[in-house]
Amino acid sequence: MNLESFQLADHNQRLLDAHRRKLAYWTDAVADAERIIQKLIDFQIAIPSWALGTGGTRFGRFGGGGEPRTLDEKMADVGLLHALNRASGAISLHIPWDIPQDADATRQTAAHYGLRFDAVNSNTFQDQPDQALSYKFGSLQHVDPAVRRQAIEHNIEVIRHGVALGSKALTVWLSDGSCFPGQLNFRKAFSRTLESLQDIYAALPSDWKLFVEYKAFEPNFYSMTVGDWGSSFLYASKLGPQAYTLVDLGHHLPNANIEQIVATLLMEEKLGGFHFNDSKYGDDDLTAGSIKPYQLFLIFNELVDGMDARGMNHATDLGWMIDASHNVKDPLEDLLQSVEAIQIAYAQALLVDRTALEEAREANDVVRAQEILQDAFRTDVRPIVAEARLRAGGALQPLTLYRSLDTRTQLIRERGLKTVATGL
Amino acid sequence: MNLESFQLADHNQRLLDAHRRKLAYWTDAVADAERIIQKLIDFQIAIPSWALGTGGTRFGRFGGGGEPRTLDEKMADVGLLHALNRASGAISLHIPWDIPQDADATRQTAAHYGLRFDAVNSNTFQDQPDQALSYKFGSLQHVDPAVRRQAIEHNIEVIRHGVALGSKALTVWLSDGSCFPGQLNFRKAFSRTLESLQDIYAALPSDWKLFVEYKAFEPNFYSMTVGDWGSSFLYASKLGPQAYTLVDLGHHLPNANIEQIVATLLMEEKLGGFHFNDSKYGDDDLTAGSIKPYQLFLIFNELVDGMDARGMNHATDLGWMIDASHNVKDPLEDLLQSVEAIQIAYAQALLVDRTALEEAREANDVVRAQEILQDAFRTDVRPIVAEARLRAGGALQPLTLYRSLDTRTQLIRERGLKTVATGL
Amino acid sequence: MNLESFQLADHNQRLLDAHRRKLAYWTDAVADAERIIQKLIDFQIAIPSWALGTGGTRFGRFGGGGEPRTLDEKMADVGLLHALNRASGAISLHIPWDIPQDADATRQTAAHYGLRFDAVNSNTFQDQPDQALSYKFGSLQHVDPAVRRQAIEHNIEVIRHGVALGSKALTVWLSDGSCFPGQLNFRKAFSRTLESLQDIYAALPSDWKLFVEYKAFEPNFYSMTVGDWGSSFLYASKLGPQAYTLVDLGHHLPNANIEQIVATLLMEEKLGGFHFNDSKYGDDDLTAGSIKPYQLFLIFNELVDGMDARGMNHATDLGWMIDASHNVKDPLEDLLQSVEAIQIAYAQALLVDRTALEEAREANDVVRAQEILQDAFRTDVRPIVAEARLRAGGALQPLTLYRSLDTRTQLIRERGLKTVATGL
Amino acid sequence: MNLESFQLADHNQRLLDAHRRKLAYWTDAVADAERIIQKLIDFQIAIPSWALGTGGTRFGRFGGGGEPRTLDEKMADVGLLHALNRASGAISLHIPWDIPQDADATRQTAAHYGLRFDAVNSNTFQDQPDQALSYKFGSLQHVDPAVRRQAIEHNIEVIRHGVALGSKALTVWLSDGSCFPGQLNFRKAFSRTLESLQDIYAALPSDWKLFVEYKAFEPNFYSMTVGDWGSSFLYASKLGPQAYTLVDLGHHLPNANIEQIVATLLMEEKLGGFHFNDSKYGDDDLTAGSIKPYQLFLIFNELVDGMDARGMNHATDLGWMIDASHNVKDPLEDLLQSVEAIQIAYAQALLVDRTALEEAREANDVVRAQEILQDAFRTDVRPIVAEARLRAGGALQPLTLYRSLDTRTQLIRERGLKTVATGL
Repeated sequence: MNLESFQLADHNQRLLDAHRRKLAYWTDAVADAERIIQKLIDFQIAIPSWALGTGGTRFGRFGGGGEPRTLDEKMADVGLLHALNRASGAISLHIPWDIPQDADATRQTAAHYGLRFDAVNSNTFQDQPDQALSYKFGSLQHVDPAVRRQAIEHNIEVIRHGVALGSKALTVWLSDGSCFPGQLNFRKAFSRTLESLQDIYAALPSDWKLFVEYKAFEPNFYSMTVGDWGSSFLYASKLGPQAYTLVDLGHHLPNANIEQIVATLLMEEKLGGFHFNDSKYGDDDLTAGSIKPYQLFLIFNELVDGMDARGMNHATDLGWMIDASHNVKDPLEDLLQSVEAIQIAYAQALLVDRTALEEAREANDVVRAQEILQDAFRTDVRPIVAEARLRAGGALQPLTLYRSLDTRTQLIRERGLKTVATGL
Repeated sequence: MNLESFQLADHNQRLLDAHRRKLAYWTDAVADAERIIQKLIDFQIAIPSWALGTGGTRFGRFGGGGEPRTLDEKMADVGLLHALNRASGAISLHIPWDIPQDADATRQTAAHYGLRFDAVNSNTFQDQPDQALSYKFGSLQHVDPAVRRQAIEHNIEVIRHGVALGSKALTVWLSDGSCFPGQLNFRKAFSRTLESLQDIYAALPSDWKLFVEYKAFEPNFYSMTVGDWGSSFLYASKLGPQAYTLVDLGHHLPNANIEQIVATLLMEEKLGGFHFNDSKYGDDDLTAGSIKPYQLFLIFNELVDGMDARGMNHATDLGWMIDASHNVKDPLEDLLQSVEAIQIAYAQALLVDRTALEEAREANDVVRAQEILQDAFRTDVRPIVAEARLRAGGALQPLTLYRSLDTRTQLIRERGLKTVATGL
Repeated sequence: MNLESFQLADHNQRLLDAHRRKLAYWTDAVADAERIIQKLIDFQIAIPSWALGTGGTRFGRFGGGGEPRTLDEKMADVGLLHALNRASGAISLHIPWDIPQDADATRQTAAHYGLRFDAVNSNTFQDQPDQALSYKFGSLQHVDPAVRRQAIEHNIEVIRHGVALGSKALTVWLSDGSCFPGQLNFRKAFSRTLESLQDIYAALPSDWKLFVEYKAFEPNFYSMTVGDWGSSFLYASKLGPQAYTLVDLGHHLPNANIEQIVATLLMEEKLGGFHFNDSKYGDDDLTAGSIKPYQLFLIFNELVDGMDARGMNHATDLGWMIDASHNVKDPLEDLLQSVEAIQIAYAQALLVDRTALEEAREANDVVRAQEILQDAFRTDVRPIVAEARLRAGGALQPLTLYRSLDTRTQLIRERGLKTVATGL
Repeated sequence: MNLESFQLADHNQRLLDAHRRKLAYWTDAVADAERIIQKLIDFQIAIPSWALGTGGTRFGRFGGGGEPRTLDEKMADVGLLHALNRASGAISLHIPWDIPQDADATRQTAAHYGLRFDAVNSNTFQDQPDQALSYKFGSLQHVDPAVRRQAIEHNIEVIRHGVALGSKALTVWLSDGSCFPGQLNFRKAFSRTLESLQDIYAALPSDWKLFVEYKAFEPNFYSMTVGDWGSSFLYASKLGPQAYTLVDLGHHLPNANIEQIVATLLMEEKLGGFHFNDSKYGDDDLTAGSIKPYQLFLIFNELVDGMDARGMNHATDLGWMIDASHNVKDPLEDLLQSVEAIQIAYAQALLVDRTALEEAREANDVVRAQEILQDAFRTDVRPIVAEARLRAGGALQPLTLYRSLDTRTQLIRERGLKTVATGL
């Protein structure tokens, strides 16, 4: 379904007065509101194609209905999100779930929705029906060179699809690892994975990036061959300047200080991209900002600081993507919540008085440093985020509008109740 | 496939001399070897019907072939395990995956294999195709009384199946909980769950037990309505004397001291049963003893001590069951490994010099207390476990025999390569 | 040092216009601002006497100077905090660190500062110079009845001191436990601890409460005899109606859902009190709200909901106390930050639209339930907290005023640089 | 006190027959027992000078009596340990706790006991009484270059002391980090630390190594500037070929796979040394092998495999040291237990059939790979460890002999009951 412009206009009109009142109060209080608004307008978060359907756990899956059945329907869903919030202007495809039949047509459809193609993602953590060799014991790490070759070829094919669509990055997430002590020769697993990655890297167009994602555990439960930022950094360093580490918020051991990792990788010029979600226990893939919003803010605080220190462009120099699962929510509502939470954290981070913060730090004034951060975090930046949406042509309250249009009901009517999006 | 008695005899004959040498050394050193051997012979660990097929994670499943397609084939598999190790003389069914079409015939088949029916397990964590109402938002905790009623009725039906087969316990594991802050009124969720359990409890035959299993997280990732031993204990206490807590080793927060929980529950007469597996990160469901064998020993140390303190019969007064998943192993081999690891831990616990241990404790002699436990743990009890198997009519080395018979190949020939056991 | 009323008046006068502007915006938007302001005025958080000095770790301690050397100086410090924020109107003493020489004089001094005496705390986790028997191997759990007797007598003496000062509760935090597997007979440790607590309970005045605090680990690193809420609940239930569980935010295993524990204990009428702090790894004792402010809000959300459900008085029916350590901050500044963070979380929890929340829950509208909570959390409630302070006679910005008065410099001048507060 | 040779001889004589019986059984079963015995004889574990006294926690310290008061007494204690087990032939000093007054005399004393000086350790995590500037806010990371300079000079002084004694390595463990979000500019903290380390590295003799130890948390509770192996690896790589990572078993986040880290660092030629201890929750500093003996074995399995792959000498090419704290045990007994647990794990790792293991791995035979490791781990190697001790001139059962000599009583008589070893 499409969002009609009159629907958007009506919605915004109804809320405009209240919005302006709140905004006025806000812009009174904050000096550089305009700068922040512009940065928010520029900041786009890619939606992964697999996040448009109901997720599941190993214990079951409870579908929600109206899920997209094709790549076109997935683009339509992201297009709808983007029309609502003007901050979801990119889609990240997953091969083989989203192989475009006609790349040109797909590009045109995307352009129609104002979407570009973000990083493409390979899949060597599942066996496909027509696949010659199994990934049961790994892919790029596999003891059998034929399996490694198959996985390498798959990645190269993913790059080809990405090139056809205008993507500029390949994300390699490997489930490779082991479930039991003894199963793996860690050294050989590392070397084989590195060699496989080198073959993939060699096939990378010169204006592409390779993102090496790491994960502490799951689906392997004893070791992961790219298990932490240190390992990913090692691979990326050995691969070359086009290789980077990708950080997924849910892929760490309990209590990890992710913001410090982010700062270190930025400093070393090896941070490539980000997968947003939230979690309490493991890779829970919950809505961004739903569990630890302060951590999300602290991460953005490091991102802003570290990118500014290198003169990087916030909007374009890192890959921003949501990677979540929606087991009990309407996926589109969940994504609207995630994007808003990310925007709020970003706006708060932009609000931090960095000069004062550095002064406090240089004076070892811990109390003041905390006050400066919390002052930004405690500020209600929702009016300014709404203003950015409004100026960009989106809705003041995307979720409210989405619901008032009864979107899900329409999607179910169009697509059926028992649809399952390709993917997990 | 069946284990022929000559195969067993040949196997044992070939290994007998070496075994006797090791055993002699052992029985020389240990005073009460006979007592331990007898206890090992008596100790049976139930095999859950769902552990006979390859497991999976939310990311994929890599089947192994030859998996049982029917309840009869599942019983045949457990029968084979039991013929090999004489320690798997019970099967635990899961409804609706294992609904017996003819209870009498099923009982006869089980008897043929020397198996009894352990606790039956209900399932309200998945929707079945023909199910009227969904468990997406919980079952016994559900806001809608009709869903609760459906879940209650299902549990009562499970009891009926269990009665027909001679089971004496119902295990209720609930995935009920919430994924996001705000989703649940904890108080109401507790009360509704309690009321639902009371209805189930009321349907319990007088010689049955109700096991209330707890789990810290997954598949709900913010809260679990029966989330820790304290909660399970509360439910079990309010339900009555037939209700008990069931401990699954993988269902705890990081670093939990499970052996202390076991001791406390035994002391309070509320420990009902055990699910064995091992894990490093969460509910990883790995082979028992494969990650933390010392923890397994320490748990058995408390079990032996606590049961003896109450005059309980090790073999019959608690429910012992494996609950694991086999993603990269032949399920039957995995189960043979698990059972052996459990027997080793049990034998080591029986070996502990309890008089000396209590003396050391009363003297605050921490060094000596540790020495006493580690002396038992460092002892190689495999000869005595093998002897118990031998006397009970099993194989000296079950795994070796299983492999030498090329069992899996035969099962694949009989059942096919692409079979999927009912279940997860 | 004292806060002069003109200093307070000057401070408030200078900030008043800006404050009124913010508040007006706020009270425009929120219907029941007055109700919340009144509740904030009533809500007092006790300051523990040991939080007034610089803390330390086992690796070292870096004193900050001007620390209180006597009980009178401690009361002066709390008095100053209370003069600044009008929310710290209680002090929690620790025996033997704070034995009053003249209870009447001490009460008068406290009254002068507007302070009452909150729960008194016993100490059996350290040996005192003149102590007959050592607590090296525990106190209330000790194998030697003479040690247990000594610890019981100490607790009874603490009650006597509390009675003399007008306290109404005893907090028993036990470091009892074990460092090594084998060291402790868990069952006996539990029974001995229970018997000891029963003796203490018997000495409790009829209008007193006994708080049984639990802690997952540290200073014992294998087991803690009161290690989780389940254990504490067991003790409190067996003791009787005057015994309650006390929750310290830092005393849990990683990832524990503390808000659910709070809800459960309130439901069972066994929640007695609260120790506020924050932490990332263990019992880090950081400033409240400095690491996980959303968790603090979620806890208050359950507190408000659970107390309202029982008709409890927020201000008086639970014990509220800060329990933190200030290794790198001025302790008084840290406490001002903690109190403000607690007030903010409380105000946000009061802001939650409970009717709408229950509706969303009963409709399984997870998205909306989250929106309702986050709407409250994202609201900038600082103006209303400041207004409550102002009306109660405190400072609009306590920390700003504290700093502008150069308080620490004055305290160092008065008390010296190398002072060490009695305590840790 | 000294161990008289007749005492040793008597002890061994009494146990010899039983030992020979066990050993014979063992050497019958194991082909290359001689090779393992020789490796055990060569393998020496350094004792840190601070491990000879009772440790403590931030909550208290319960001294045990007879603790060494001087460097000479510390060497005497290690000498006694070494005389008992012939595996503790090195001591690791901590400056400023152990500044030798006369290096030559100290070397002679050490030689008398058969001890060499292992890595020297600097201390910038505490302030010393005579110190000009405070480390409250860090040392090598400090914002003030004068503090950094002081810390650098201290490290260089430690090297000088080490040179005088014949040490060949400096271990730098930094408590530097932050307790609160905002406190630290992570980037600057890293750069300053790196620059400081470069100055220290420049002062390193050409045959020395610099060990960069990492730790996840404590005593800083928000960030540690050398917080994980990835960070340490970065520092060591930037410093140069003499810089290495040092792994302390207790310095990781929950559930970390330490053996994989070890394998990776060995592969990258950046593993320098090891601190042995055990833990359940954090840096609990418990006796090696007392909590997770299987993990200790798995680590040694990687050490043996990785060192062999590089042709390294097990005994000399890595630094082996115990780093534990003895809160409830006699420190010398604890150290005897730790050394034995380490030897057992090492012997078991030497027992692993590496050819078969690699075959199983290359065949993806997970079950067999686990069997091979567990076969080694389940083997009772104590007779062979005792034999190695015997041949090296030590006691068959060091702890038994230590106790039978009533050593602690004698030490208390010599040194007094209330002594406190310099250090923590």
